[in-house]
Amino acid sequence: MKFEHLLAERTRKMGASAIREILKVVSQPGMVSLAGGIPAPESFPLDIMEELVARVFRKYASRALQYDLTEGFIPLREVLVDYLQQHKNIQASVEEIIVASGSQGVLDALGKVLISPGDKIAVEAPTYLGALQAFNPYEPEYLRMDTDDDGLIPDALEEVLKTKQIHFIYLIPTFQNPSGRTIPLERRKRIAEIIQRYNVLLIEDDPYSALRYRGDALPAIKTFAPEHVVYISTFSKILAPGLRIGFCVAPEVIKKWLVIVKQGVDLHTSTFSQALAAEYLAGGYLDQQLPKIIRIYKPKQEAMLQALQNYFPDNFTWSKPEGGMFLWAEGPQGFHTEQLYWKAVERKVAFVPGKFFFTKKGEGLETMRLNYTMADEETLDRAIKILAEVIKQAL
Amino acid sequence: MKFEHLLAERTRKMGASAIREILKVVSQPGMVSLAGGIPAPESFPLDIMEELVARVFRKYASRALQYDLTEGFIPLREVLVDYLQQHKNIQASVEEIIVASGSQGVLDALGKVLISPGDKIAVEAPTYLGALQAFNPYEPEYLRMDTDDDGLIPDALEEVLKTKQIHFIYLIPTFQNPSGRTIPLERRKRIAEIIQRYNVLLIEDDPYSALRYRGDALPAIKTFAPEHVVYISTFSKILAPGLRIGFCVAPEVIKKWLVIVKQGVDLHTSTFSQALAAEYLAGGYLDQQLPKIIRIYKPKQEAMLQALQNYFPDNFTWSKPEGGMFLWAEGPQGFHTEQLYWKAVERKVAFVPGKFFFTKKGEGLETMRLNYTMADEETLDRAIKILAEVIKQAL
Repeated sequence: MKFEHLLAERTRKMGASAIREILKVVSQPGMVSLAGGIPAPESFPLDIMEELVARVFRKYASRALQYDLTEGFIPLREVLVDYLQQHKNIQASVEEIIVASGSQGVLDALGKVLISPGDKIAVEAPTYLGALQAFNPYEPEYLRMDTDDDGLIPDALEEVLKTKQIHFIYLIPTFQNPSGRTIPLERRKRIAEIIQRYNVLLIEDDPYSALRYRGDALPAIKTFAPEHVVYISTFSKILAPGLRIGFCVAPEVIKKWLVIVKQGVDLHTSTFSQALAAEYLAGGYLDQQLPKIIRIYKPKQEAMLQALQNYFPDNFTWSKPEGGMFLWAEGPQGFHTEQLYWKAVERKVAFVPGKFFFTKKGEGLETMRLNYTMADEETLDRAIKILAEVIKQAL
Repeated sequence: MKFEHLLAERTRKMGASAIREILKVVSQPGMVSLAGGIPAPESFPLDIMEELVARVFRKYASRALQYDLTEGFIPLREVLVDYLQQHKNIQASVEEIIVASGSQGVLDALGKVLISPGDKIAVEAPTYLGALQAFNPYEPEYLRMDTDDDGLIPDALEEVLKTKQIHFIYLIPTFQNPSGRTIPLERRKRIAEIIQRYNVLLIEDDPYSALRYRGDALPAIKTFAPEHVVYISTFSKILAPGLRIGFCVAPEVIKKWLVIVKQGVDLHTSTFSQALAAEYLAGGYLDQQLPKIIRIYKPKQEAMLQALQNYFPDNFTWSKPEGGMFLWAEGPQGFHTEQLYWKAVERKVAFVPGKFFFTKKGEGLETMRLNYTMADEETLDRAIKILAEVIKQAL
């Protein structure tokens, strides 16, 4: 029997995922993938997991396995209050914090609560693909905002707000996915001032800021405009993505609806995963682990930056972020990284053609996202060298 | 700042959850709750959890903490193939099985894939509230189907299919929530025949069938019409709900879209929870635990049935299911269980007024759902006695 006629209108509009299709080859044996956004397995605190589990059962017993509040496990939300204050200078009460199944769970719930078909959302060009995948089923219209090496250009934000009725703005201000770019302090203040003046809501997605290898930490935009920002972060990069623990700090009315919507989506996020995350923070394990994670990624990033310097042609530029998981390379106008992709894959190196991170067709054809967290330094050097050879053949 | 103007149309229509409001008092100290649908904590295999965790890390190491396939962790889907075959007589390949964050996660994804605003869905009267909460944001129109002591009446199903364009049918055939009722074999065959003849899709939700205290297991409707049924089940009642592991077996085209949609919702379900569920099945732990769970619940159910027999007035009737977690009591026409609720709560006994399980306003005012899994036998006897006293005062 065929069921195509049963698909909802939103489903018919979705279409198959083009990026899913092209990335299928990444799992081929021998492939060096610079395509993923996947933490290195050696960054997980595997050595303390059984201790953490013992701690969870000692402290919470069967409660760690039971149904729990849709808002999230209270002991986790309590330690998140301290974590947000100490690490991010964000003041949040337990009531303002919602735990979800990854940041993705927050993005989906926000989409469901806020987006009616045709509502306008302002996003960076380029922006995070997972956010688009969360929002797409709710059928928004995207408005792109220009960026430069310092991320979102405040004037581009104001231009959009001046001319259009925006439903919300979505940004990753620090070590952005895909570009690796970070919005500097003055721009953050300017953006905060603009969203307050235009009285609009900003979704500030912050998965990477803990992964800083150089330079000084920057305050979240949330700290300059607390009433106008939903701040999102995750344990995926500082503990383990497989636990699927994300969280947000949201203004009251948004928070209330996120909870009602989330109840329909999954009742609540895994209590056991939440209890593990709670004890990871409460037991001081993060403070031990985070320097280890940084020690793993910093030389990888340096190896990739050095290799780009050594091998890439002069008419390519790339971002030089102080942290995160990605670099963003741009070829000359007219260069097509999707064509390059298939040639690179023949040589067993994969990356993500940058066009998939743009909401407007035809943009970013000459761009590419390079991830350095999964391979070792030697492999990264070799992969960039191969990529450079393939590029030079294509130029 | 106020953000009400930003809420999506679907959110505005949702309204606050009336049942959420009235059940707030259930957590008051000293309350005996017959209101929940919560497994007894003593039914969890707490004694083997650390062994299970050790097994998971021995077998999967960092893979148990890593990002994984949206479809679900392959070792879990592999043991589910055997589980479904042996326990449910359902033939499913790994490819047909999707793991989600609880059955709720399956229901949400089905709603997103299938329901456009105004699409008609046929449900039992009464039906499961959580399914309505999953489907509501996609704005379906519900068509109610009559039930009797044997659950859905096949003629009522056919009547609806004859006169309306139905998008799908949603049923819990075994130990239904809220009624506890089970559809007998002949009716299952009849329902399978009807859905095949009308070529419609059935969502068969089966969370409770493993909790059988008496009588013989019944085959799922899926076994009689495999092409026309999405079969859903969960680990919430046979392992622990806090892990949030549900799964479904879906026809190919539905499955394909469920995966795309689920990727936007949470990327995938907790790998660690899935690995625990996989080893719970693979290690034979379920076979040891299930008889223990049944030994916990059977006397509780018998105590409640006996107490109803002893104390409830003659003009009340109630279901006498062979398993599950709920009984369904009905008072005489004109009796209002919501008024009863507030009087019972004063005497520290809570239940769920049945009207919340009906999609049509004004139905089920005289009905109530009684859960027996959380209290001990003595408390259940006392609670039903109090409830009977309050009822007699109200009659």
